[in-house]
Amino acid sequence: MSSTPDSAVRAYIAEHRSRFLDDLADWLRIPSVSADPGRAVDVHRSAEWLAAGLRETGFPVVEVWETPGAPAVFAEWPSGDPGAPTVLVYGHHDVQPAAREDGWHTEPFEPAVRDGKMYARGAADDKGQVLLHVLGVRAHLAATGRTAPAVNLKLLIEGEEESGSPHFPELVRSRAGRLACDSVIVSDTGMWSEDTPTVCTGMRGLTDCQIDLYGPDQDIHSGSFGGAVPNPATEAARLAAALHDDDRRVAVPGFYDGVVELTAEERALLAELPFDETAWLRTAHSHATLGESGHTTLERIWARPTAEVNGISGGYQGPGGKTIVPSRAQLKLSFRLVAGMDAEKVQQAVRAWVADQLPAGVRHAITFWGATRPCLTPLDHPALQSLVRAMGRAFGRKIRFTREGGSGPAADLQDVLGAPVLFLGISVPSDGWHAPNEKVGLDLLMKGAETAAYLWSDLAEHGRAVQGAPPG
Amino acid sequence: MSSTPDSAVRAYIAEHRSRFLDDLADWLRIPSVSADPGRAVDVHRSAEWLAAGLRETGFPVVEVWETPGAPAVFAEWPSGDPGAPTVLVYGHHDVQPAAREDGWHTEPFEPAVRDGKMYARGAADDKGQVLLHVLGVRAHLAATGRTAPAVNLKLLIEGEEESGSPHFPELVRSRAGRLACDSVIVSDTGMWSEDTPTVCTGMRGLTDCQIDLYGPDQDIHSGSFGGAVPNPATEAARLAAALHDDDRRVAVPGFYDGVVELTAEERALLAELPFDETAWLRTAHSHATLGESGHTTLERIWARPTAEVNGISGGYQGPGGKTIVPSRAQLKLSFRLVAGMDAEKVQQAVRAWVADQLPAGVRHAITFWGATRPCLTPLDHPALQSLVRAMGRAFGRKIRFTREGGSGPAADLQDVLGAPVLFLGISVPSDGWHAPNEKVGLDLLMKGAETAAYLWSDLAEHGRAVQGAPPG
Repeated sequence: MSSTPDSAVRAYIAEHRSRFLDDLADWLRIPSVSADPGRAVDVHRSAEWLAAGLRETGFPVVEVWETPGAPAVFAEWPSGDPGAPTVLVYGHHDVQPAAREDGWHTEPFEPAVRDGKMYARGAADDKGQVLLHVLGVRAHLAATGRTAPAVNLKLLIEGEEESGSPHFPELVRSRAGRLACDSVIVSDTGMWSEDTPTVCTGMRGLTDCQIDLYGPDQDIHSGSFGGAVPNPATEAARLAAALHDDDRRVAVPGFYDGVVELTAEERALLAELPFDETAWLRTAHSHATLGESGHTTLERIWARPTAEVNGISGGYQGPGGKTIVPSRAQLKLSFRLVAGMDAEKVQQAVRAWVADQLPAGVRHAITFWGATRPCLTPLDHPALQSLVRAMGRAFGRKIRFTREGGSGPAADLQDVLGAPVLFLGISVPSDGWHAPNEKVGLDLLMKGAETAAYLWSDLAEHGRAVQGAPPG
Repeated sequence: MSSTPDSAVRAYIAEHRSRFLDDLADWLRIPSVSADPGRAVDVHRSAEWLAAGLRETGFPVVEVWETPGAPAVFAEWPSGDPGAPTVLVYGHHDVQPAAREDGWHTEPFEPAVRDGKMYARGAADDKGQVLLHVLGVRAHLAATGRTAPAVNLKLLIEGEEESGSPHFPELVRSRAGRLACDSVIVSDTGMWSEDTPTVCTGMRGLTDCQIDLYGPDQDIHSGSFGGAVPNPATEAARLAAALHDDDRRVAVPGFYDGVVELTAEERALLAELPFDETAWLRTAHSHATLGESGHTTLERIWARPTAEVNGISGGYQGPGGKTIVPSRAQLKLSFRLVAGMDAEKVQQAVRAWVADQLPAGVRHAITFWGATRPCLTPLDHPALQSLVRAMGRAFGRKIRFTREGGSGPAADLQDVLGAPVLFLGISVPSDGWHAPNEKVGLDLLMKGAETAAYLWSDLAEHGRAVQGAPPG
């Protein structure tokens, strides 16, 4: 069925596992927090580290692409075979903020291996899943005896994903020629579990914002003035509360316009997954489920748009009480989008809704940090079938389907490049993305590299069917 | 109408005005800042200065009462007349911090007289208003030819009012026998303006709390879990938003139980005050009024109970966005109480309401910091009528009524001593309490002394009706 001998791939990966993990740990020591202006130097160091690693791997073209924000890394390794399909691997080298005092058992930027897992900020999201492609392409070459990959392999590893990828769409548009491809492989997601490997067929989009509310020009005495002037903390709370109706549906008018609803088949496939609510709640570190009525938990997190309060603040926060009407308050909100939704329309709807909710005497400012579009690949797409086969060989199990509740810039690639987006992710839900003690399973990382090694051969074989296929 | 000839009172006060102002300036030179541990010696000096002045005035009993904090001064001058009512004057001898560089035109502890006003920290709040009682009782004795006041006169001048009166309730409870009285005169408030003398008839009470909400055990990814688990920041917002209904009435069930509503007469009297909303908004540093519908601004801040969000926090507060469902959130709420409300019942109502609002999966804890009871003296109370008459004679104008929106230790006196509280305050809003260039009007101080001189005679005449009257 494939030209890549499985045993040779596995042998190569086993032999190079230790060196690979050392390399990953080196990279994880660079605190490439894109949201923190004070870490800009580290984000650059991270890009240079990766570029050097890709050159050493053998990529003949490796470039650091500057943006007005953080730099991306681009690499290209032509196949040399006439008619070989072109694949673009997407990932990111920036990470979420992390501090020991948030609850980390070890330093977030000093990787520690315990029980077959590597703990560090970025271990799973996304440095581990980027670096598995370095090992994957080496195993692919070693096992096939090739000197170049069976596909024209391109990598685009951005540096602002954790900051909402503000410059990514422009980067992709301006470099669309260099990035042209037949399919996109996104390695920035996860799978169901170690025992239930899955392929993801879509991601939610995202747009998030900060709303600043201004009431009195200074904090004022709640006895002298309270109850007679607007309180921006109260208004922030009223906005956040009004985001959802009593069915926990998003109450911003127009929010659901255009939403592609789940088909009966999709609902049935989702229902097949061995979902254990108790275990899921443990993963969510949560004590109950709560969400849009009429939908299961998996539907809520994968296929339904949501609104979330990421942060709220205003007034006195120290010990004890302080009887003031605060001068200011702030909300940080994020909206997850599904196929059929337009981020700009959602932003407009939110702006109109906020302006409509606030009373006289409370000024406001809204800043949207950016937008990531949702994407969805049909279940019967040929490239998706290749990925399912490659993964099936690596994992030795039936591959099922999921979606991803999170958001990535994959949809920009889909839109600009006109290529379907596939998700090769080996992280599992307990890996703690954006949370303290983020980790990645070392065996899963190896299976991910193995999947990549098979995938380039499989796509090369079935590539003609893929070329030019429109996005789903 | 009264046994005190007005002309004799005025003559005495005019004659002793200069000496009185020298005395006041002496006292104001002592920087009795109770909040500053480095000024503890000065607070003690201030107490001793006052005690010496009261002895010189003729009070046969003068004691400095030590507390675990700053000392209070107690003085007593029995009337000698059988059946004379007993009056307790309350004030404080400590002051707010002040420094020249805060914007004072002259040294805050070097009193300066300009344009008929004395500028110094404590001039109005509260040393001037305490000392007017020394001149007042002297004028009362001189004009009536008495050797002791017409009432049993007691003074309790505390030393920690500007630090929240931490030891005052215990002091009052432990000395309740010595402090027993038929009415309390609080001289630590103000009146509407020079042209509109007023008597305050009550203060709001206060109880405030912190509510901690706990959702996921740690911050979690809003893409992976958002929309399917409860978010404590959302729930904090829903609580804060649900505090008020669309009419901005407090929506906690039972909150208004027992509230003594304004009578039509009281509403009419409040509406008579020359209220300038634009000027008031400037004082409030606010840009619009907003409050319980069906009530004017003055009613809202003086006579209506309120709920205020003093602080709210939860989730990410740094720059940019962070797509999390936060683990925790916190609310700081305060409730102003009016006559008829019971702080403990309000606390119980809030506790029950919070528990009822929260969904499964969000734990909570409520801590109430304490409670200050409201106080209110009915307009037709005989002691209040005495005060209005005395003030009317001193000011030669119709005396109108106000209330005080803030909360103070007066209610402790009312509760422990079972006596109605009356407010004799001659400060005006522009006197700059707690602000740079605090001042007191010299003519107003004299009118205050004149009011006290008439008041003791009037209360003695009408005292029998006062004795034993329960608080309103």
